[in-house]
Amino acid sequence: MSEHEQDHAAIPLSWVGPVRISGNVMDDELKVPLATYETPLWPSCGRGAKITRLIDGGVTCTLVDERMTRSVLFTLDSAAEAVRVRDLIRAELPALQEVVGRSSRFARLIEVNSEIAGRLLVLRFEFTSGDASGHNMATLAAENLMTHLMGVHPELGYGSISANYCTDKKVSAVNGILGRGKHIIAEAVIPEQVVRERLRTTATRLVELNERKNLIGSILAGSLRSANAHYANMLLGFYLATGQDAANIVEGSQGITQVEDVDGAVRFSCTLPNLIVGSVGNGKGLDFVEANLDRLGCRAEREPGDNARRLAACCAAVVWCGELSLLAAQTNPGELMATHVGIERAGGA
Amino acid sequence: MSEHEQDHAAIPLSWVGPVRISGNVMDDELKVPLATYETPLWPSCGRGAKITRLIDGGVTCTLVDERMTRSVLFTLDSAAEAVRVRDLIRAELPALQEVVGRSSRFARLIEVNSEIAGRLLVLRFEFTSGDASGHNMATLAAENLMTHLMGVHPELGYGSISANYCTDKKVSAVNGILGRGKHIIAEAVIPEQVVRERLRTTATRLVELNERKNLIGSILAGSLRSANAHYANMLLGFYLATGQDAANIVEGSQGITQVEDVDGAVRFSCTLPNLIVGSVGNGKGLDFVEANLDRLGCRAEREPGDNARRLAACCAAVVWCGELSLLAAQTNPGELMATHVGIERAGGA
Amino acid sequence: MSEHEQDHAAIPLSWVGPVRISGNVMDDELKVPLATYETPLWPSCGRGAKITRLIDGGVTCTLVDERMTRSVLFTLDSAAEAVRVRDLIRAELPALQEVVGRSSRFARLIEVNSEIAGRLLVLRFEFTSGDASGHNMATLAAENLMTHLMGVHPELGYGSISANYCTDKKVSAVNGILGRGKHIIAEAVIPEQVVRERLRTTATRLVELNERKNLIGSILAGSLRSANAHYANMLLGFYLATGQDAANIVEGSQGITQVEDVDGAVRFSCTLPNLIVGSVGNGKGLDFVEANLDRLGCRAEREPGDNARRLAACCAAVVWCGELSLLAAQTNPGELMATHVGIERAGGA
Amino acid sequence: MSEHEQDHAAIPLSWVGPVRISGNVMDDELKVPLATYETPLWPSCGRGAKITRLIDGGVTCTLVDERMTRSVLFTLDSAAEAVRVRDLIRAELPALQEVVGRSSRFARLIEVNSEIAGRLLVLRFEFTSGDASGHNMATLAAENLMTHLMGVHPELGYGSISANYCTDKKVSAVNGILGRGKHIIAEAVIPEQVVRERLRTTATRLVELNERKNLIGSILAGSLRSANAHYANMLLGFYLATGQDAANIVEGSQGITQVEDVDGAVRFSCTLPNLIVGSVGNGKGLDFVEANLDRLGCRAEREPGDNARRLAACCAAVVWCGELSLLAAQTNPGELMATHVGIERAGGA
Repeated sequence: MSEHEQDHAAIPLSWVGPVRISGNVMDDELKVPLATYETPLWPSCGRGAKITRLIDGGVTCTLVDERMTRSVLFTLDSAAEAVRVRDLIRAELPALQEVVGRSSRFARLIEVNSEIAGRLLVLRFEFTSGDASGHNMATLAAENLMTHLMGVHPELGYGSISANYCTDKKVSAVNGILGRGKHIIAEAVIPEQVVRERLRTTATRLVELNERKNLIGSILAGSLRSANAHYANMLLGFYLATGQDAANIVEGSQGITQVEDVDGAVRFSCTLPNLIVGSVGNGKGLDFVEANLDRLGCRAEREPGDNARRLAACCAAVVWCGELSLLAAQTNPGELMATHVGIERAGGA
Repeated sequence: MSEHEQDHAAIPLSWVGPVRISGNVMDDELKVPLATYETPLWPSCGRGAKITRLIDGGVTCTLVDERMTRSVLFTLDSAAEAVRVRDLIRAELPALQEVVGRSSRFARLIEVNSEIAGRLLVLRFEFTSGDASGHNMATLAAENLMTHLMGVHPELGYGSISANYCTDKKVSAVNGILGRGKHIIAEAVIPEQVVRERLRTTATRLVELNERKNLIGSILAGSLRSANAHYANMLLGFYLATGQDAANIVEGSQGITQVEDVDGAVRFSCTLPNLIVGSVGNGKGLDFVEANLDRLGCRAEREPGDNARRLAACCAAVVWCGELSLLAAQTNPGELMATHVGIERAGGA
Repeated sequence: MSEHEQDHAAIPLSWVGPVRISGNVMDDELKVPLATYETPLWPSCGRGAKITRLIDGGVTCTLVDERMTRSVLFTLDSAAEAVRVRDLIRAELPALQEVVGRSSRFARLIEVNSEIAGRLLVLRFEFTSGDASGHNMATLAAENLMTHLMGVHPELGYGSISANYCTDKKVSAVNGILGRGKHIIAEAVIPEQVVRERLRTTATRLVELNERKNLIGSILAGSLRSANAHYANMLLGFYLATGQDAANIVEGSQGITQVEDVDGAVRFSCTLPNLIVGSVGNGKGLDFVEANLDRLGCRAEREPGDNARRLAACCAAVVWCGELSLLAAQTNPGELMATHVGIERAGGA
Repeated sequence: MSEHEQDHAAIPLSWVGPVRISGNVMDDELKVPLATYETPLWPSCGRGAKITRLIDGGVTCTLVDERMTRSVLFTLDSAAEAVRVRDLIRAELPALQEVVGRSSRFARLIEVNSEIAGRLLVLRFEFTSGDASGHNMATLAAENLMTHLMGVHPELGYGSISANYCTDKKVSAVNGILGRGKHIIAEAVIPEQVVRERLRTTATRLVELNERKNLIGSILAGSLRSANAHYANMLLGFYLATGQDAANIVEGSQGITQVEDVDGAVRFSCTLPNLIVGSVGNGKGLDFVEANLDRLGCRAEREPGDNARRLAACCAAVVWCGELSLLAAQTNPGELMATHVGIERAGGA
């Protein structure tokens, strides 16, 4: 490709907040950047951010799990052979960990899951990956593991370096059930007065809407491990602003919003089981990305992985802000139409 | 938000191709822009683009269907009431079309699907939307339809302006089965010599890989209406470069790759049932987007909808290029590792 | 197979109820037969049946839709050809209806849905089938339609008489979204006193349990269009007792339980979108089946289809009884353990 | 329920085979009982059984995994609390195993998986259960574990004894991915001559049909971890004949058929990841069930679990027979119609 063909897509970016975030990953008050063509997303998330500052402790983000994965595919002569070799490999975890250790300072093999269908053997390698989202180090490690295993077990035929059981940037159940990326939960209890005055709604109406739309509506739509209004919007904006591979919003979009009525107050949580983010890696060297990560405090000197976990908390918190704001608006038909006239609406939900 | 907070995310963009595209939507040879932090995507799609120029007719794109949808949620006193009112509404389609016609020059109501669960009534309004992806005109039309229906049928209680049965930017089966966005298929037969020399593989190996990875691997992963290696990567790059709302890659990623061995030649097709694109609307007024759409010939004087359909064909064609190239590489373990050393790999698949 | 090899599986059967059922399909009070190896199902459903007699009108069953389907698969030279021929076929509905009319007195073709992937064309023929569940008449009609279409459109290659887009006895989203079998809803409001005294629980606890277990728990499990505790148990028992093809509980199990707190009373509904039953056809000629159908009043002289619809209501009502009873028990840990000691528990949920 | 209300559903039963079965579970030649109202299933499976006797070693059944599960639901004050307590419980596996050991001679706790959504904590207890399918012993063990855990961790609130993450008799992805029941694979290579003469088809046509119908057709239908023609039919017949809880065909129906062309011979496999069977427990004490299990050699003096594994192999083998026979028939339109005239067709597929 010749030089003059190179250019940039200049996506409008603005800062939302500050959002007040606490939890087992960070404790801070920060503006969060969102890059999007759907600019009404900014005031919508901004309203949620204001709410976080009216709550003791703000929105609390809890990391449940983290890992990056790559699955590989082998063929064998029969299912019986596949079971036999799988059982051998299960006993070789330390050797596999050593193989991974030789190729990367950061990747650490923590688990090997498997699937067998007919004479196909799928191994799902699961790693921690420091501050990187870990796609590349997982792929490199998987390639080394494949070479190693085919050397040790010549019965293994090469199937594919990716078996789609990883699974990257594709709708699945496996990512939520076995884990991929950060599994993180943002939650807070919003006092009744704030619900009434700032969100112009009630706990009852929010609970009803969430059950009917996000839970039952999604089930009717044939959704898969997904029950929310528009996580994808906030994820996209945050990913583009912070140099993430935004194609991972596919699995990121699969999350669950829960609403509870606590005597008129609202317990509101967003569970994101497959949030893939990194503070280092592809895209992170661009000037504006560095500047944005700096403002989020995600390029500080910390233990490996801490910057990425902090980044995940920022992302989960802004998802919480945007989800709350849209749901509150949708409890009130009149408000929605009025908002529509005032500002162009974000495409979401 | 104060002025100085506004900025841009400058995503690296390059042009891939030219891609040779024919079909019921367009017939041309074009460079296609892709904006991405995962820059190895460019040479990978570029290889696919070269293949299109070695095939008679290039890659053929066929539009199967197009519509934009918005579902709304009503409550009634009982399921029996919901059925009764649904039956009435079914007979009122002309009146509903008139309501839509009053709010938009472009939106046209073509179908109303419904779901009933308990005492909830979901109506899924389905529109054509000219050259726009149509989110906003569908939402505005749905709001007007809701107001109209609640006037005519006072038994209808307001549930939600969005019932998640639309469904926007969320994993689902409904979008593929009932339709949302363009349903478009890119296909071509690649001569044996091209397969061997340019893709360094064979029909047999491509067929096997596709069945084992994209079909069976995806099924094992608990995928939903999705069987491909990395559509999401190409969609993201194309969407960002052309001003699309890239959060729609969530449903866009759900598509099916098929590979057939035709006496050593390879029939390769990518079916994208939920491709949401527009040549007008949010994001399209930015200078670089206008320039990119111009270069794609998607801002020409044409019948309403023709520019958007042409855009969809460009997108489907570049998905075809990227999917083919990656799959071919994955049939050959040695090649993958070598490529890895040469250039940094795209995150996908 | 020699005569002496033939035998019978004698499944224990008992009658539950009477259940009080009203709605757009029937209005009666009936005992309902359930055949099962899991005999604790009887007292559990029996408790639910008692509840129906303490409610004005009992449990109300509403038929939302009914159809039986068969999909067929054709191959064409390209996706473009598939679209062209599909468009032609769409315009030929009256001719197709005539073909169906020639092969059956009862099957009536009401809709033809389609899917196109690559060069594959799937047609989903949708019929009403009188009092039969309709598998066989749909298959016969589909075979005739296939022959007819391949005669009219010689471009059509035979793919398969079943394309798995029907879909029969298999997990899917298509059956719920496009319809297959009876879509029927059983619902009632249970007075607070009955909830407290007979179900030993409260509206609050039932609402919470349903949201956490049936909605969120099912979503976490990667369920598909399914949110209930154990519909499959009641369906199996009813199907075996009334001569149904019980393999259809696979799709029958996909339904949604909803619970609402109405000032302390409980609105409880079971939505069964894919309930496949018939009062005539395979299995219906066995003596005990005839006797059971007689007792249910489903072999009376009625309009074609009325007996089958009445049968569907009986089935939905007993699903309601069993689902309510188990959920109520699960709100109370102490009760469950006590019950366990007293009687062996049904395997379900 | 009064005595005279008790009765039996007498389902027609016949023996299919003998089927020749080998593998890591058994090695024998046996007739297999199938009870069904859809009697054409018998000759169809019978044809498959004949094939097994024409193949060296017959059909080979390989056990990949086995476990029975029960998930329970707890509430905590927050997600952070849920993570904290989960981490504690993870370290208490030996104590939990001891609790289980006290309640059952056969249940052994082998793994505890978990899910956290908002402030809900789901624990999925996974057991081996000897020769029983294990529903009841898993439930009893889960109740004891719940009581134990709520004693040790008073922060745990009771949510539900079943969290639908088990998941029993319901469509899910979790059962296949984390395992429930026997994961078993039946496979064999059918010589070209047998394919041609007995199945009246070719490897090419079977491979094509399987890819188009079972793989792509199922994907289009929005299936979930399911790609087969009619496993549910054989499962139902086998379950009823051998005293199984046939409601478990819901998850049992989720399996994958693979077909490969081996130089004109056909490698045909059926992967059943969720096959739930037992040789003891509910239903097994009935006279005809005892007789049937005896004939299958599944009540012999063996190591605990061996009879159940033998039973699973018989079931998988007959699934293989029925699946092969139907698919072969569907490759040939003429044959299907002819068969239809001769005998009434089974409803399936």
